[in-house]
Amino acid sequence: MTTRIVELRRGILKKNDELAAGLRQRFTSAGVLVLNLVSSPGTGKTAFLELTLRALRARGAHAAALVGDLETDNDARRLAASGAPVRQINTHGICHLDAEMVTKHLDDWEEVSLADLNYLFIENVGNLVCPSSYDLGERIRVALLSVTEGEDKPLKYPGLFNSSDAAVITKIDLSVPCGFDRELALKNINEIRPGIRIFETSAKTSAGMDEWLAYLAEQARPS
Amino acid sequence: MTTRIVELRRGILKKNDELAAGLRQRFTSAGVLVLNLVSSPGTGKTAFLELTLRALRARGAHAAALVGDLETDNDARRLAASGAPVRQINTHGICHLDAEMVTKHLDDWEEVSLADLNYLFIENVGNLVCPSSYDLGERIRVALLSVTEGEDKPLKYPGLFNSSDAAVITKIDLSVPCGFDRELALKNINEIRPGIRIFETSAKTSAGMDEWLAYLAEQARPS
Repeated sequence: MTTRIVELRRGILKKNDELAAGLRQRFTSAGVLVLNLVSSPGTGKTAFLELTLRALRARGAHAAALVGDLETDNDARRLAASGAPVRQINTHGICHLDAEMVTKHLDDWEEVSLADLNYLFIENVGNLVCPSSYDLGERIRVALLSVTEGEDKPLKYPGLFNSSDAAVITKIDLSVPCGFDRELALKNINEIRPGIRIFETSAKTSAGMDEWLAYLAEQARPS
Repeated sequence: MTTRIVELRRGILKKNDELAAGLRQRFTSAGVLVLNLVSSPGTGKTAFLELTLRALRARGAHAAALVGDLETDNDARRLAASGAPVRQINTHGICHLDAEMVTKHLDDWEEVSLADLNYLFIENVGNLVCPSSYDLGERIRVALLSVTEGEDKPLKYPGLFNSSDAAVITKIDLSVPCGFDRELALKNINEIRPGIRIFETSAKTSAGMDEWLAYLAEQARPS
């Protein structure tokens, strides 16, 4: 059975890669910067994204978000409070988003036209493992890690950190009560993905958001 | 392709269920209480388990642990400090433990004989989704959730909470800085799994450990 599973897994990932390549082409033609946000459940992706959407809107940028969860539309409702167009993808038991789900939800999203957007954020299902195998056509994959989770996560989940373009440390306002060892966390992230851009943020205090927004603006600029 | 995937997934789960049934029979014959600990990465499974192993040892009970991670043996080394026999299972990219991995690691574990144990803890890979589909032959599945992760996790990951026998809230020492809404968390857990036993704990202060240890002793008693 193992050989069949490996073959089938290859087939699924190959199909996903083809769809993702199509998405990437669409995103590039439309001139929209697409980011795929991946982390554990509870890292604070939604709070970080809500703050990002509000700040981009305040600066006159056009941003939208797709948000993946097994169940509930809690996150979409939270994010919609930012004023940005937001669409929930419920995976009903599937542990990651894939390119087919993203394609489908973009195709019939009447509220949004890619060409009018500067940024599209895709908040993945909370999971440090499975989403790293599924390309969604994004230009930037962001791995998020909160100070409450422990400094060793990059070493224990190397697949995600190794495939990411940026790392965001969240909840730094909790560093002291959590006894967070910042140097060790930075060292571990760099060990898996040397030279990766790292942002140290708090959605509560807005720490680190200026650097993050400057990075977004820089990445969105036509080269 | 979808039909083939569903069929193959059924086949994998069926094979896992058969192996898990075999494990359950072995565990029952040996008189060992087996618990499968499941949570997000960073919930504090290892700290909670280390404290549990130390306390059981101090009470003269015999406990051992199998610990699953994609990579590294950090957790096994941390747990071994308790003095209990501990064995690391590295899944190398697989997002959950399955009954085959548990069987294999028990079969050639020279240090441990099941018949000599009162308790065997299986610390699963950090993932709130995939482990819930894989029976490991445990008698008690424990879903852990830290106060840093947000009160909505049971609603967003119902598969795990619905298949669990006990829920452990961890890191309650961080409730205040995290603004944790205890009543809401308890309500959400009970909404998914009415009447489930819930323990509110802190590995830092040892809060809730007495209740947890009393529960373990009660469950381990031959009925």
